[in-house]
Amino acid sequence: MGKRKAAEPDISIAKCGYRLLLEIIGSKWAVLAIYAMEGGDVRYGEFLRRIEGISKKMLTQTLWQLERDGLLERDIHDTVPPGVEYRLTPLGRSLLVPLRHMKSWAIDHYPLVRKARDAFDQRADLVAGGETEGQS
Amino acid sequence: MGKRKAAEPDISIAKCGYRLLLEIIGSKWAVLAIYAMEGGDVRYGEFLRRIEGISKKMLTQTLWQLERDGLLERDIHDTVPPGVEYRLTPLGRSLLVPLRHMKSWAIDHYPLVRKARDAFDQRADLVAGGETEGQS
Repeated sequence: MGKRKAAEPDISIAKCGYRLLLEIIGSKWAVLAIYAMEGGDVRYGEFLRRIEGISKKMLTQTLWQLERDGLLERDIHDTVPPGVEYRLTPLGRSLLVPLRHMKSWAIDHYPLVRKARDAFDQRADLVAGGETEGQS
Repeated sequence: MGKRKAAEPDISIAKCGYRLLLEIIGSKWAVLAIYAMEGGDVRYGEFLRRIEGISKKMLTQTLWQLERDGLLERDIHDTVPPGVEYRLTPLGRSLLVPLRHMKSWAIDHYPLVRKARDAFDQRADLVAGGETEGQS
């Protein structure tokens, strides 16, 4: 490891799979909306209730974006008033597989992250208690 | 809203693995910074060069957060001026595994997403053409 990178911009980052990925699920609301549909159809009001902290504006935008990307489809029921249910398309469901890997990682490693965070904050407190030094 | 009577908030979303995950890598810059360190040590200026569009402020904040969470460590070289290199910790490297699953999904499915997006935009154009002008 530690090989020196070339001096010119590494454009591969701009074009790599992570950029594509982040273009699709760059917002946390997208991930949570996909998760909300994991178990089946979801109505608009259900998203609002189930996803803590999401605003109507953000929900509408997120659903629009997921539909545009082919991850979500709307099922419009011929009732009065018309009912709309949202569900994952097969493409959207295929994304659940790697998302579950990520989720498992988070569940398994969260205790270590918390431990690191606490230790870091303790060191920061010590430094702040001693002498404050400009951080650049 | 609350039309249906399954009215309790689904708190599982607030506490589920996805929330934990998004707490750790909720920003796209975090994902891209991790990716930049995939091949070895990286200096501050290299991040700036390699990650298109990242600001100094956002980079500093992202590195700080990754270090606080135990995903990244700094290696300070005893040179004049002192050199600082950033690298993934074993915990950080463990996150590369599910991230690669996500990246593979993105690379494999991006063409389908693009296709869906184009079809969606065409339909939207048709609707806009029928109703109003100048909206895209």
